[in-house]
Amino acid sequence: MKSYPLLSTIDQPADLRGLSRAELKQLAQELRDHVLTSVSQTGGHLSSNLGTVELTIALHHVFNTPQDRLVWDVGHQTYPHKILTGRRDRMAGLRQLGGISGFPRRDESEYDTFGTAHSSTSISAALGMALAAKIKGEDRRSVAIIGDGAMTAGMAFEALNNAGVSGANMLVVLNDNDMSISPPVGALNRYFARLMSGRFYSAARQGAKSVLKNAPPLLELARRFEEHAKGMIVPSTIFEEFGFTYVGPIDGHDLDSLIPTLENLRDRKGPQFLHVVTKKGYGYKLAEADPVAYHGPGKFNPAEGLKKAAPGKPSFTQVFGQWLCDMAAKDTRLVGITPAMREGSGMVEFEQRFPDRYFDVGIAEQHAVTFAAGLACEGLKPVVAIYSTFLQRGYDQLIHDVAIQNLPVVFALDRAGIVGADGATHAGAYDIAYVRCVPHLSLIAPADENECRQALTAAFEQQHPVAVRYPRGAGVGVAVQSELTALPWGRGELRREARGGGRRIAILAFGTLLYPALAAAEKLDATVANMRFIKPLDTELVLSLARSHEALVTVEEGCLQGGAGSAVLEALQAAGVNLPVLTLGLPDEFVEHGDPAKLLAQLGLDAAGIEQSILKRFGAKLELVRPAING
Amino acid sequence: MKSYPLLSTIDQPADLRGLSRAELKQLAQELRDHVLTSVSQTGGHLSSNLGTVELTIALHHVFNTPQDRLVWDVGHQTYPHKILTGRRDRMAGLRQLGGISGFPRRDESEYDTFGTAHSSTSISAALGMALAAKIKGEDRRSVAIIGDGAMTAGMAFEALNNAGVSGANMLVVLNDNDMSISPPVGALNRYFARLMSGRFYSAARQGAKSVLKNAPPLLELARRFEEHAKGMIVPSTIFEEFGFTYVGPIDGHDLDSLIPTLENLRDRKGPQFLHVVTKKGYGYKLAEADPVAYHGPGKFNPAEGLKKAAPGKPSFTQVFGQWLCDMAAKDTRLVGITPAMREGSGMVEFEQRFPDRYFDVGIAEQHAVTFAAGLACEGLKPVVAIYSTFLQRGYDQLIHDVAIQNLPVVFALDRAGIVGADGATHAGAYDIAYVRCVPHLSLIAPADENECRQALTAAFEQQHPVAVRYPRGAGVGVAVQSELTALPWGRGELRREARGGGRRIAILAFGTLLYPALAAAEKLDATVANMRFIKPLDTELVLSLARSHEALVTVEEGCLQGGAGSAVLEALQAAGVNLPVLTLGLPDEFVEHGDPAKLLAQLGLDAAGIEQSILKRFGAKLELVRPAING
Repeated sequence: MKSYPLLSTIDQPADLRGLSRAELKQLAQELRDHVLTSVSQTGGHLSSNLGTVELTIALHHVFNTPQDRLVWDVGHQTYPHKILTGRRDRMAGLRQLGGISGFPRRDESEYDTFGTAHSSTSISAALGMALAAKIKGEDRRSVAIIGDGAMTAGMAFEALNNAGVSGANMLVVLNDNDMSISPPVGALNRYFARLMSGRFYSAARQGAKSVLKNAPPLLELARRFEEHAKGMIVPSTIFEEFGFTYVGPIDGHDLDSLIPTLENLRDRKGPQFLHVVTKKGYGYKLAEADPVAYHGPGKFNPAEGLKKAAPGKPSFTQVFGQWLCDMAAKDTRLVGITPAMREGSGMVEFEQRFPDRYFDVGIAEQHAVTFAAGLACEGLKPVVAIYSTFLQRGYDQLIHDVAIQNLPVVFALDRAGIVGADGATHAGAYDIAYVRCVPHLSLIAPADENECRQALTAAFEQQHPVAVRYPRGAGVGVAVQSELTALPWGRGELRREARGGGRRIAILAFGTLLYPALAAAEKLDATVANMRFIKPLDTELVLSLARSHEALVTVEEGCLQGGAGSAVLEALQAAGVNLPVLTLGLPDEFVEHGDPAKLLAQLGLDAAGIEQSILKRFGAKLELVRPAING
Repeated sequence: MKSYPLLSTIDQPADLRGLSRAELKQLAQELRDHVLTSVSQTGGHLSSNLGTVELTIALHHVFNTPQDRLVWDVGHQTYPHKILTGRRDRMAGLRQLGGISGFPRRDESEYDTFGTAHSSTSISAALGMALAAKIKGEDRRSVAIIGDGAMTAGMAFEALNNAGVSGANMLVVLNDNDMSISPPVGALNRYFARLMSGRFYSAARQGAKSVLKNAPPLLELARRFEEHAKGMIVPSTIFEEFGFTYVGPIDGHDLDSLIPTLENLRDRKGPQFLHVVTKKGYGYKLAEADPVAYHGPGKFNPAEGLKKAAPGKPSFTQVFGQWLCDMAAKDTRLVGITPAMREGSGMVEFEQRFPDRYFDVGIAEQHAVTFAAGLACEGLKPVVAIYSTFLQRGYDQLIHDVAIQNLPVVFALDRAGIVGADGATHAGAYDIAYVRCVPHLSLIAPADENECRQALTAAFEQQHPVAVRYPRGAGVGVAVQSELTALPWGRGELRREARGGGRRIAILAFGTLLYPALAAAEKLDATVANMRFIKPLDTELVLSLARSHEALVTVEEGCLQGGAGSAVLEALQAAGVNLPVLTLGLPDEFVEHGDPAKLLAQLGLDAAGIEQSILKRFGAKLELVRPAING
């Protein structure tokens, strides 16, 4: 057990406000070591947290938290913040079932003013807080801390556009580490790089003019000339054009720069913008050298660094990545699109092999979807790789630009269902409901790795939009065929027939829960269908099973409200068929972070849980409960 | 019938390419008159179309359409484009059932390269088309024409950020009329105004430098000094910072400016940006003077202008607007938020009376929702007024920022269900499905005006997020009480009991279709419940009706997949209750534009249609079909 003589005395931010600059620097060293040590023992986000140690100390030193509000964008850089705000000893349980979250959460600490996890929400939230303080006449500050990657998303721009004219007293801190999870793309990042090369340490700017509001013409002219005069060294930034006072860039690892600058900005009126430059992984050489690899490592020995894991079962992500390359080799119309998730979506090899057909559009899900629609209009075949939870960002574009025009775009929805350590914010719980209601759009839930490849091939062959959903991590380990064969369109398959031959129970499994459903069916001697298609539903199979069984059970890793089970209920009613149906899936609540297998067991979606639910509903001996209404 | 000697000879854009400049000017006069005349006879968008007459002529004159691609953002400025592309005689059927759409549609004309209607999609689509041409080795141009209002939405920024580094040969035409539907807000619009005041007609800029790519340091320095030198008159714009070549502003009503500038830009490499200034309503004094009123007028006499309509039944929008003012007067915590739809959402009076609590955030649905979340964190009570179809833009924020944190935000979802003339793009068809699956979030569908007020009051009283959905236009005309009384939470009501007393049919109506359901029930002697709450569903009422009837019928103005009917099916199955249920609602297809009453009749959702569907399913004498499975 390491000792942290200074850090161990900090139980809340107030404890560090009395420290000298030298002590704060020592605190930074201890804090950095604590982050590295604890993350190496639990896994979690590393590079981003090593990069925000000094910034976190400076913010809590200068601002009167929690009275002043810090809103951390994305939030995977908040471990130092958590450690300094009373959660030092809880880092051992980070991202584990029952432990603290890897993101800020309002219900975890009063210092977590706004829950984040998806990118680019912080300026909107901090603006809301700032204007609320104004309306209520409260004297508090609002600070959004946002990365350069997150700044590329449209909603950050929407918030800047609004904040710049709001007159709100707020501070946006741009934490510019020239990275998102992957290297950043886009014009804004090039712009940041130019700002940095031209202006680094231009401390003179720190006393930059306030924005003159409602300036009369002559004053406005004077302001322009002033801007112009400064322009010789420091041209006006787009943030100033937007109504912010811009300060920076300053070194985000230098407390002697950070603290006086933040003190200066703290009491300014109107929207302020501070450009801070940090290095992802700062202070740990291995992470500095490869911030992508150390973005979200598992457990490791800090002295040795990450080791190449022995190749295990391929993940669905890898199956997708391989399919993408194979199909691209076969069909030159294929283009691949990612909103800044090259690694997470398994597109590294595709980019290397097909650079002209690879598009990382930045953290820009809305644009990603409509951009794909534009490509599809010209006869190309776009594949948009996007997590289920992030397609929520492009939902309108999915409906308005892709589905209404019935364009053949394939959506590869990774992280469908429970995601584990990232928790509720990242859960792919809703895509079945929100996709199924959209006309023209199909949805496939393959049961295993090989079916995933076949589902993608089937989707790619269609002349209309199709989404394929698959979960995080590996499946059961079914060997993946190298051929590009398609699942028969719209058809499920019978995987097990009840041996008794009687009219008993049929389980209709959608997606990877087929396998626990099969295990449960062995115990119960139930029939099992691998439905594969959520839309179009294999109604023929559903009705056939309904006719030959006394009850149906649907199983899916998605929300019950409007999910695949509801699709079965709708199909039965449309056919005028009535029989008991038990629908199993994710409950109408947000599922916490933790080990996915444990979570599924808790939710009754492992083999034992499925068995228990069926027994509970339909009786210990599978003597069916007759419906009360017809009794 | 007016005669249009020149316009009548233009059946396709190729016909105008041979015209002289003088003839083009005459054509503009005729085209403007045609737009005014036809819109005054059909209703439709006026101001925006009068503003784009010359721009449309110039674009079709300079670009080789349809080989070159024009993508019109929003699309409510495309009537001149429609008239010039072979649809002159079809303007009489504009936005009517079976007639042409008020927006571009790929299935209507090869000149409509991309369907639009929601704002800010054009740059993404045009970029996709430009890069597709590059991949395919085709020599064609892509042009996005986007308004200054639409430019404030995040996805336009996402697209600029991507396009600026893409090397795509594309042109973005900013049609700057200093308006969205309402006067524009936000920093970007102030910026445009500054550009305009400083640079109008700075024709020297039209030969502006190309962006130097991969410039070596010395060249880069030279470029800066060049920029700086120009900066005396024309400082670098944010579009240039983003990698575009910027030209403008130029007069968008002057063909002598437009045509040579577009010719110049047509053959440039890389992303080009042309800033065009137009006037909404140009050429029709009444519309110029009040472009908001003439944004989307009904029929009128051009010589007289719009007349104040005699006050009829209040629309749901007006009921909302009145409620908002009344509740704001009672509770100082209320704040109202609109994403640039002050008029459409009925917030004009609220803004006047409570300017400090009114926030028009621009066309920025994502920001609107998260901004509301920030306000709610501080104890305020935000009411976000947003059309059902536009909440699709803020779906992730609804889940991630509002629902997960369980913040008390009220969403007033106007235009739920069929919207009429605007058609499929604007239909509020999916909100029941996409809201119902989100934990913590409730959804109410009031049946009439008074219930709408009560539903809003009930929503406002909750400590969690609630959406209230109501349709476009007026309801049945129920008097609205002035009190602020709340609907009993989660409770529906019995509105009609079958006289026979037998176990027959119960209709469960959600929302305004209660009234046709009641009429149908009179014919059939069915029971009718006004369900009001989609979530939480009044399960007690559902089960009670299921026990006392032999079949249920659900009726809703929303998609059947995952809709309120499915909620009823889910509740019955969860309770182990089986009986026949007929679900009536919007089909799994996109519903075309046309008169809402006619459309509802076509879809079988008027009284006669509901009656017919019930008769068809359950037999002419309501002798119930016994379910085959239990037979």
